Amino acid sequence: MQKLGKQTIKFDKPPTILETASIVGPKEAQGPLAKYFDTLLEDEFWGEKTWEKAESKIIKQAVNLVITKSGLPADSIDYCFAGDLLNQCISSSFGLRELGIPYFGIFGACSTFVEGMILSSICTEAGAANNVLFAASSHFCSAEKQFRFPLELGNQRPPTSQWTVTGAGAGIISSTGSGPFVTLATPGKIVDKGIKDANNMGAAMAPAVVDTLLAHFQDTGRNPSYYDAILTGDLGYIGKDIAIEMLQTYGYNIKPNYNDCGVLIFDKEKQDTHSGGSGCACCGTVFSGYLYHELKEKKYKKILLIATGALMNSTSSQQGESIPGIAHAVSIEV
Amino acid sequence: MQKLGKQTIKFDKPPTILETASIVGPKEAQGPLAKYFDTLLEDEFWGEKTWEKAESKIIKQAVNLVITKSGLPADSIDYCFAGDLLNQCISSSFGLRELGIPYFGIFGACSTFVEGMILSSICTEAGAANNVLFAASSHFCSAEKQFRFPLELGNQRPPTSQWTVTGAGAGIISSTGSGPFVTLATPGKIVDKGIKDANNMGAAMAPAVVDTLLAHFQDTGRNPSYYDAILTGDLGYIGKDIAIEMLQTYGYNIKPNYNDCGVLIFDKEKQDTHSGGSGCACCGTVFSGYLYHELKEKKYKKILLIATGALMNSTSSQQGESIPGIAHAVSIEV
Repeated sequence: MQKLGKQTIKFDKPPTILETASIVGPKEAQGPLAKYFDTLLEDEFWGEKTWEKAESKIIKQAVNLVITKSGLPADSIDYCFAGDLLNQCISSSFGLRELGIPYFGIFGACSTFVEGMILSSICTEAGAANNVLFAASSHFCSAEKQFRFPLELGNQRPPTSQWTVTGAGAGIISSTGSGPFVTLATPGKIVDKGIKDANNMGAAMAPAVVDTLLAHFQDTGRNPSYYDAILTGDLGYIGKDIAIEMLQTYGYNIKPNYNDCGVLIFDKEKQDTHSGGSGCACCGTVFSGYLYHELKEKKYKKILLIATGALMNSTSSQQGESIPGIAHAVSIEV
Repeated sequence: MQKLGKQTIKFDKPPTILETASIVGPKEAQGPLAKYFDTLLEDEFWGEKTWEKAESKIIKQAVNLVITKSGLPADSIDYCFAGDLLNQCISSSFGLRELGIPYFGIFGACSTFVEGMILSSICTEAGAANNVLFAASSHFCSAEKQFRFPLELGNQRPPTSQWTVTGAGAGIISSTGSGPFVTLATPGKIVDKGIKDANNMGAAMAPAVVDTLLAHFQDTGRNPSYYDAILTGDLGYIGKDIAIEMLQTYGYNIKPNYNDCGVLIFDKEKQDTHSGGSGCACCGTVFSGYLYHELKEKKYKKILLIATGALMNSTSSQQGESIPGIAHAVSIEV
């Protein structure tokens, strides 16, 4: 692999996304992408006593499922990258503690899924591994409890708020295979434009998307029209509009082929999520379910996936801090 | 690079640890390794209003310091890996938000520093980067507040407890240089032997050290005596003894050349830390200060550094969960 421009990595022998798997919660199961997900849960607990344990079970089963679907023996998977939104990433570490695969914990908030895909691709092309697994999870109830208010309080959600996706996405990157291929990666910088409203993540993360997209286009010489689709992770309706507007001021029109996983996963009219979906599992399940399917079917041949993360916690908000955002992009081509 | 045995990576052109930097708090500044650290703080706040902001400042300044010491222009550093113990790793994301270097957030609890060193080495040898920065921080006061009890409560600490190191370690891995070199890496699996005492991290993490060391010795054909020194991250006195005993049952005697960063950083008699030091900054500062100095001076020529992490949070303990451990090893040679 080689460095392209300031912050993009070009894979000389692009690794294959061998397989993906997705599990979603009951609300996502009623959404427009339901048919693309592998497992649809009927409730948020899945037989567990706490939301945290339910989330651990979801990522565990998503990882088991992607291994089964790939047909690979588990011991042929060299390394695993995983993370989630819970404090100290316990969904991943508890969910994957019986996996028996060397483990790298990662934290990129809702950008974690693509961070894992990038690092898995680097390890694979570098020769450190033949097969690397990556996964990310989130859970509406555990996230609300931890970042905002206990659900039992029945707090009203402002119109700018987004709905954390319950679910997990998992994938396996292989050094050999027939695609879809990870051809380029543009890891993002931390960008903080001073947004302090913890109920408006889209606005906090949109500037990071703009920063990463500008770097990607400049490093690669590509234009937005190169891609069949440009997908952000979880900007939601508000962040999506901000990203479009901001990029226009830099001379890039992404509007014709751009959408956001948080906009796609829920029905705007029938499902009351205000500004759309969010969470590690938003990008994780929409990619592992819908987008991977479209790539395999060659309905999309070139996509740019930009997962977005808000790198704050509840303490930082209480201490008056603004919200740093990050966005990691991967170019996936068949 | 190539895979060696089941879980070890062998670097064909071993990357150089070009430079390191360390900042420590007031208690560490009174310990036996004080003279090896770059910056010694007089108090735990360093002019900030909260412990979280102080920890962010510490990692920020450690990163700025390692860049200055290296003599590299900041824009020649391609990527940065960092993490810490705070919820959602806010010490790193807030501390490094103005850095302007593409950022990968990682979470391996107290194993984060070596996780970052491994991933930086992979990126560098793979050709994705010429220079990669890695850093990790922890802070006694923010950690106590978050994981245990507010300090104001004046809780008694049990004899098995360890003292979270206040500080940060940072390093730069370069594709070219005259060493010390990262020659091998053995990333660890998650190991959970059912320990539930959140005040006995050494016991929870020791089995992960044993698992990683056995893999390392088996993959490489090396014996403990190959190394001038084997150093674990933060097992402390209790975990250290457990690791020695457990490895003896597998036929490996590490006792003659083995020590633990948590044992080294505080004076057992004069400083009341019970079972020794812990935290991301324990391994991070002891390596960046003391061990790196000894390698540069060629007092040590071959060391095996195994950072250790406990992958739990306060919620998981309240929900009756045991504590999963992890240990990542790197062989560093001059």
